[in-house]
Amino acid sequence: MENKKLIYLDNNATTKVDEKVLDVMLPYLQSEYANPSSMYDFAVNSANAIKTARKQVQEFLGADSDKEIIFTSCGSESANTAIKGALANNKTKKHIITTAVEHPCVMNVYKYYEKQGYKVDYIGVNSNGELNVEELLEKVNKDTALVSVMWANNETGVVFPVKEIADEIKKKNPSVIVYVDAVQAAGKVKIDVKNTKIDMLGVSGHKFHAPKGVGVLYVRTGTVLSPLIIGGHQERGKRAGTENVPYIAGIGKACELANENLDYELSEVKRLRDKLEAGILKNVFNARLNTSVSNRVPNTTNIGFQYIEGELILLHLADAGICASSGSACTSGSLEPSHVLRAMGVPFTSLHGSIRFSLSRFTTEDDVDYVIKTIPEIIDKLNKISPYQDELEALRNLKK
Amino acid sequence: MENKKLIYLDNNATTKVDEKVLDVMLPYLQSEYANPSSMYDFAVNSANAIKTARKQVQEFLGADSDKEIIFTSCGSESANTAIKGALANNKTKKHIITTAVEHPCVMNVYKYYEKQGYKVDYIGVNSNGELNVEELLEKVNKDTALVSVMWANNETGVVFPVKEIADEIKKKNPSVIVYVDAVQAAGKVKIDVKNTKIDMLGVSGHKFHAPKGVGVLYVRTGTVLSPLIIGGHQERGKRAGTENVPYIAGIGKACELANENLDYELSEVKRLRDKLEAGILKNVFNARLNTSVSNRVPNTTNIGFQYIEGELILLHLADAGICASSGSACTSGSLEPSHVLRAMGVPFTSLHGSIRFSLSRFTTEDDVDYVIKTIPEIIDKLNKISPYQDELEALRNLKK
Repeated sequence: MENKKLIYLDNNATTKVDEKVLDVMLPYLQSEYANPSSMYDFAVNSANAIKTARKQVQEFLGADSDKEIIFTSCGSESANTAIKGALANNKTKKHIITTAVEHPCVMNVYKYYEKQGYKVDYIGVNSNGELNVEELLEKVNKDTALVSVMWANNETGVVFPVKEIADEIKKKNPSVIVYVDAVQAAGKVKIDVKNTKIDMLGVSGHKFHAPKGVGVLYVRTGTVLSPLIIGGHQERGKRAGTENVPYIAGIGKACELANENLDYELSEVKRLRDKLEAGILKNVFNARLNTSVSNRVPNTTNIGFQYIEGELILLHLADAGICASSGSACTSGSLEPSHVLRAMGVPFTSLHGSIRFSLSRFTTEDDVDYVIKTIPEIIDKLNKISPYQDELEALRNLKK
Repeated sequence: MENKKLIYLDNNATTKVDEKVLDVMLPYLQSEYANPSSMYDFAVNSANAIKTARKQVQEFLGADSDKEIIFTSCGSESANTAIKGALANNKTKKHIITTAVEHPCVMNVYKYYEKQGYKVDYIGVNSNGELNVEELLEKVNKDTALVSVMWANNETGVVFPVKEIADEIKKKNPSVIVYVDAVQAAGKVKIDVKNTKIDMLGVSGHKFHAPKGVGVLYVRTGTVLSPLIIGGHQERGKRAGTENVPYIAGIGKACELANENLDYELSEVKRLRDKLEAGILKNVFNARLNTSVSNRVPNTTNIGFQYIEGELILLHLADAGICASSGSACTSGSLEPSHVLRAMGVPFTSLHGSIRFSLSRFTTEDDVDYVIKTIPEIIDKLNKISPYQDELEALRNLKK
């Protein structure tokens, strides 16, 4: 790829590892290879790297104690550990509440529990992608074991009021476990679990410039959890397996950097996102913003191009060196339209032509300018081969 | 540690990442950071890295197809996936057979199943650490769901005849699932699953010069397995989570290198191990080989120093820059003597003073010479403060 233009606007799928993160990792991939559980001096640096990282993650999440931080191998493992670990200790209650727009990977865990005889309520969103919080709270009852709400949606970037939701749930039923998938929130909004009633919260390193293959599960002190991976004493018995010292050191550093860069994300990355969004909407008559709410993570926009096919747009974007996506990478290759946009009631005419652009702190002004310039050319070409010429013409006249 | 001598003889705890492995990994920690599930060109290299690695692992394990290879985050995850995944699909049978000398991490999974109402038979070993295969086969019955036998023991290095065991089990009851923990065998003996009746086999990268945080689970075609980590479509639905591309590329390369170096392990590493073993036994009158069987992995020796404390020996070894251990790293810090040596009936007098030395292809002649020279000095010092002076004197006279 060295010689080709690369405009990477798919940071909700994965991110570039920050060079500073890699620098912190490298010694543990080279000379400092001891098993952190070993008793000799050579293992001290490995063990200390984990301690430092645990403190950095604690700080990043605003946890009361570093004992509340468990390192995992990915966001999916964090979710599986939280959900299965909590339900295993609460077998009499068979009711779960979640949202209709959770990440497919988390959703699939609940589909599994439905097959095991659980009742799962999937709470919907409005046309702006905002969660129906009232409906969610109404569903909480004595039989509710778990409520699981994502902090920010991966496709639209819409932020859900998880603090308020957790507060209200605990008022109705203090024994409900509240799990928050913060995979798309980490690094993009301030997370401060100690001032919430969230019991567990999952994070994935590769969404904020740590490598793929490391995650975190926050578990509030007092939350009873059976380990998903049984074995050794690592992670206080909550996650067996020799610790991935390099990546743990890496995600710790990534947390520190995310803290440092949060203001930049909320100002500069947001400015570039808003510029990209406005530029596309201005220059493409059949572009339609799938949600315009201000309470979005600063890096994400989701735009429908009416009457044309998303896969075709992505193909042309890729030819122009622009990486974006039509949904989560985990469902790439599937031709079904996004379950998130369907839950929002995005009209059929733009559902199939919706593209998510997700920026990062490495996105440049030039990147955004190039996309604003390139997209209209691509869409113009595709409009010409759309089978919906009359509809496009009507839309064009409407916008004039 | 740069300025201190480091003689690393704890390769059964973890190994140094081979520089060639790191070289293969680095691009995926730098410029090639795409999510392998993404559809654009930029993701092609990431996706291809996984394909290449899967082929390398297939070759290394002698699997019929690369579809039988699942990447995991560690040996513990491989074991948990295999065991829980198989038992979840076989709920009527409640009998498990394993060995009394499995790695504690695998053992703990069976302790968990005992609490769930399973009957678990733990098959013993003789004083040389060899498995009582007859007893194991006798235990196989209609209710047996799973037989789980390690390929090589982590503390003694003794190799178990897993091929023959699997053959005989399947003759008695073809529906039994055979799981083999090959964590300590990989890179030290030839593994060729296609010529066996083993259903599943687990491997951990960091035991053969890949990083900590990546493992493999071999699953024979036709074996029904529920995923441990539910979520996305990755690993053919058998293991969710965005793929750890760098480490997957790394373990693939480590497999290729292990194949290339197997002859060296079986000749040169074995020669150095034998030299170390003979040197210690010759120069230390109260040294006692815990097992002398020739059918051991070539890198491991386990030596009891009678009437002195293992932890004290390790401390002095560490002061001299020598890393070794008294058991698995996962049970480091525990003062209980090794369950493996106890199962062998190692006498009390040397049980507490047993040390495992485990070499690798990076161990040098100088390393071994230094240890042969240093150990007698250390043991001599410790003998002098042992409370068992009469017994030591008797032993000294006996050896004269």
